[in-house]
Amino acid sequence: MTSLPCEFELIERYFRPLAKAFPGAYGLNDDAAVIAPLPDQELVAKTDALVAGVHFLPDDPAELVARKALRVNLSDLAAKGAAPRAYMLDLMLPSTVTEEWIAKFVYGLAQDQERYGVHLIGGDTNMTPGPLTVAVMAFGDIERGRMIRRSTAARGDAVFVTGTIGDAALGLEVLHGRAPNLGASVANVLIDRYRLPQPRVVLGRRLLGLASAAIDVSDGLLADLRHVCEASNVSAVIETVRVPLSAAARAAIGADPRRIATVLTGGDDYEILFAAPPSVAGVLAELSEEVRVPITAIGRMEAAPIGSKAQVTMLDESGKPLALRREGWTHF
Amino acid sequence: MTSLPCEFELIERYFRPLAKAFPGAYGLNDDAAVIAPLPDQELVAKTDALVAGVHFLPDDPAELVARKALRVNLSDLAAKGAAPRAYMLDLMLPSTVTEEWIAKFVYGLAQDQERYGVHLIGGDTNMTPGPLTVAVMAFGDIERGRMIRRSTAARGDAVFVTGTIGDAALGLEVLHGRAPNLGASVANVLIDRYRLPQPRVVLGRRLLGLASAAIDVSDGLLADLRHVCEASNVSAVIETVRVPLSAAARAAIGADPRRIATVLTGGDDYEILFAAPPSVAGVLAELSEEVRVPITAIGRMEAAPIGSKAQVTMLDESGKPLALRREGWTHF
Repeated sequence: MTSLPCEFELIERYFRPLAKAFPGAYGLNDDAAVIAPLPDQELVAKTDALVAGVHFLPDDPAELVARKALRVNLSDLAAKGAAPRAYMLDLMLPSTVTEEWIAKFVYGLAQDQERYGVHLIGGDTNMTPGPLTVAVMAFGDIERGRMIRRSTAARGDAVFVTGTIGDAALGLEVLHGRAPNLGASVANVLIDRYRLPQPRVVLGRRLLGLASAAIDVSDGLLADLRHVCEASNVSAVIETVRVPLSAAARAAIGADPRRIATVLTGGDDYEILFAAPPSVAGVLAELSEEVRVPITAIGRMEAAPIGSKAQVTMLDESGKPLALRREGWTHF
Repeated sequence: MTSLPCEFELIERYFRPLAKAFPGAYGLNDDAAVIAPLPDQELVAKTDALVAGVHFLPDDPAELVARKALRVNLSDLAAKGAAPRAYMLDLMLPSTVTEEWIAKFVYGLAQDQERYGVHLIGGDTNMTPGPLTVAVMAFGDIERGRMIRRSTAARGDAVFVTGTIGDAALGLEVLHGRAPNLGASVANVLIDRYRLPQPRVVLGRRLLGLASAAIDVSDGLLADLRHVCEASNVSAVIETVRVPLSAAARAAIGADPRRIATVLTGGDDYEILFAAPPSVAGVLAELSEEVRVPITAIGRMEAAPIGSKAQVTMLDESGKPLALRREGWTHF
């Protein structure tokens, strides 16, 4: 009925080694794990699940699926200022999954455990008649009461974003065959950004005390900025010419200027969008140099109109508001 | 494309109210939740996922699916001696799911939040082209270093089990139409036990300081006892006539004595199987009375054979070892 070893053997061979350095995981040999925050800290907890055919392509390499599933969660922790420490993993496996696939998936996890200093502490594997589904729950440490919220942006704050925006969404267009006019090297850069997010874990931790509010960009710059604005009851004005673009994204937009909408609303960026007082701009510039991650000011927060919802306005190069077709990317 | 409101509206209407009493959930209006153990305590974390058609039947009532998904996780916390406090939830929804289904699912969660004193603190909803899938991650509090392990049973311990064993597995037989000779009232009792586990949350907490090792019975009495024995390096001898059976299970076995194998290996019991020194039998009897949950001694732990794996022996009424066909129930 299946080409896989039984669950116990899978755990023994593949998953247990991922848990060996975390004492409270008990070698995945108990019913539950124990985790406690460091002194004077508390835990930040996040879960996000990926479904084949919805959040990644069914033939994406197993290592990349594993790393993406972990990284989309680490990205949330980073945006909150937390230091990632541990995660749990639920795997729903179709009967077509082979032991080789599992081995590669686990290899991807091992690479990112090393890179980000996190450990597997528990999980569950199940068969499914449906698509491969990966649910990750990640835990990070943060000083008590210090989590960077969505809801604490203030009028007068500048709006910043890390890295570059739009690459992943353009990469997905390429994978769907909707960008045939792009050269191979541009296409590959964009695809890589879709398949393997780069959560801003080191930088996020350093935003404690600098950012007044933050969110990771997963639904799209416009939609996630709106989340911050609505939670904080402020309006944002963004100068879209200042939104940081990679050379690949610039090439893609050069070939078809309508792609700016994909960039601003597409999602899957896993950058950090944050608000901060303009007075910290200098400190942020030094931090950007130090951790080698671009930080770009793209706009400002203003008072929300009295008696109406917070607004997000995206201005084009001539200062006119852009009318964008989509409000980010939800999975419905 | 779908009959459901968008994710944001689903959260607003249905899930946010489940989070309102837990400050660190921030009304599900941020990217992550904050949780800290009580003073001198640590967190016990567990995740288990359920897939329609694998762990529950696709037409099971939504309330019961929700409660089962939560309860199978609370059962693990209970067996570890932890007091449940919070949970996260990933929902993978096929496009056939209606808003009415969600409303009922959330109603089931609300009922059990009230019953067990837990709160939703985060989650993720996604569409899936596959079967409905529910992943829950539960958190409980426990005094630092006190989690009841699997691996700490000692030779000379008595083996105890709570409640009755086998009802859920027999209920599944009924649902599959493999027990046509049972009366409706017997059948319904068994089906209820399959659909709605009764995690021993109050009792589990009281086993701290009494049980030397514990596990919740989900894979089957035989398989879960083997987990304890292998982790603890002790052998178990069980007198199967002492395994506690409900009147319904006794009726089912009366109609077909081969069903004893289903009872001992079937799984989904969500009772607590534990080892404890015989000297605490009196205290356990009083505890059983107080919390109104049967606790039955069913056997003993012995030294494992030198140089070989821990053994589990199930004796029949004449003291002869039973040969059981299956070793519990794995999902592969």
